Amino acid sequence: MTKLEIIKIGGKVIDQKDQLDKVLSAFAKIEGPKILIHGGGSKASEMERTLGLTPQMIEGRRVTNKEAIDVVIMVYAGLINKTIVANLQAVNCNAIGLSGPDGNAILSDKRPPKPIDFGFVGDVKKVNNHLITSLLQAGLTPVFSAITHDGAGQLLNTNADTMASVIAQALSNVFEVHLTLAFEKNGVLDEEGAVLKTIDKTLFEKLINQKTVTDGMIPKLTNAFDALTNGVAQVKLTSSEYLSNANLPFTSVVL
Amino acid sequence: MTKLEIIKIGGKVIDQKDQLDKVLSAFAKIEGPKILIHGGGSKASEMERTLGLTPQMIEGRRVTNKEAIDVVIMVYAGLINKTIVANLQAVNCNAIGLSGPDGNAILSDKRPPKPIDFGFVGDVKKVNNHLITSLLQAGLTPVFSAITHDGAGQLLNTNADTMASVIAQALSNVFEVHLTLAFEKNGVLDEEGAVLKTIDKTLFEKLINQKTVTDGMIPKLTNAFDALTNGVAQVKLTSSEYLSNANLPFTSVVL
Repeated sequence: MTKLEIIKIGGKVIDQKDQLDKVLSAFAKIEGPKILIHGGGSKASEMERTLGLTPQMIEGRRVTNKEAIDVVIMVYAGLINKTIVANLQAVNCNAIGLSGPDGNAILSDKRPPKPIDFGFVGDVKKVNNHLITSLLQAGLTPVFSAITHDGAGQLLNTNADTMASVIAQALSNVFEVHLTLAFEKNGVLDEEGAVLKTIDKTLFEKLINQKTVTDGMIPKLTNAFDALTNGVAQVKLTSSEYLSNANLPFTSVVL
Repeated sequence: MTKLEIIKIGGKVIDQKDQLDKVLSAFAKIEGPKILIHGGGSKASEMERTLGLTPQMIEGRRVTNKEAIDVVIMVYAGLINKTIVANLQAVNCNAIGLSGPDGNAILSDKRPPKPIDFGFVGDVKKVNNHLITSLLQAGLTPVFSAITHDGAGQLLNTNADTMASVIAQALSNVFEVHLTLAFEKNGVLDEEGAVLKTIDKTLFEKLINQKTVTDGMIPKLTNAFDALTNGVAQVKLTSSEYLSNANLPFTSVVL
């Protein structure tokens, strides 16, 4: 099987041009088929505030009401996605920006309003393997924003870690998929703040119980374990700087 | 040669959901390969005003400064493009939204600042025939926003009529291209306001001289003549309602 690298970037790196350029240059140098998935950084919340809206978060996840969905579409699928694609083209990476409705790439269901109403948020139902594989085989590098669609014309905001995980799972039928979830820390930290070399489910549960792993790290790791359970060959959690400096630490997620 | 329909829509139809839905349903029903190119309606100017910016126009064309380029990327490549694609998917048209940097689809040069500095505005240099043809052959329907890139990471605002014309020209090597520029009138009007059945270059010049054809109609018709001169089989100017009602009038542009 051919190796496929899937990298998810998010957080502050999206907001800072010099950091983003460095990450994109490193990404462009990865040989063979690859996919980039990006989060939204702080720009969507900034834009909401500029427009007089109040960003709402529950358990670290955005509540996406009618006004907020337009803002996240503009910022994620528009400004960030096209800026990343243009910058990848500038370093000879033939990127193509995609959101869920493009070629029916990612279909999702609007999340039920109970127990918490997150608004226009989608849970992925189906990844269009065939489309993504054809684009990769044509030498293109898909760059996904975390906007999906419900097949009936509604765009939905989707968690970018989840997008990365489900895309990795879907493509593991065709490729040997290596998934990297890059974020602001160097990996999963133990109780003393040191980067763990590996984490398995037993350690994960222990760290949740002792509140060492909290908030957004819980769904991130759950997405990582889901990927491994469903055929993904390797999952790493690391900083986005790791992409340009392989001497930096990372955490391998193992079953 | 296989027939390829290229339709450009713009103006108020973009802003009004019921009108847009009608146009997209009609577009989805067109058989065979097809491409949609969309303008931005009034949403970009609206968004600029909401953000405290002042939209600037010279000769009916937007001046796109540093702040304005971010707004047009968000609105054209993000909100409008993805809304159109999601709505086409909902009526069984396998649309894929593209802006210039996607797969290096449309490369442009930043327009020189003399005689008028339009800011981050691009004049198309190269259309990626190969990419667009491959997507069409895969059964996909490209939907273009009028955002292009310079190959060095800069996104540029581009006239949507021009985009439609140059895409039509580029693809006329491979397809028998029929180009429709849909707008708010039923076609080109004569001095009494009646829709002309045809317009050729001689009549065009006459109508400019008597000021019957003015402002935005001049570059629109110039784009139409450029298309015909460079291999496009047929060019029509008509209203977007024509797409769902072929009994409405239109103007055929002829050399």
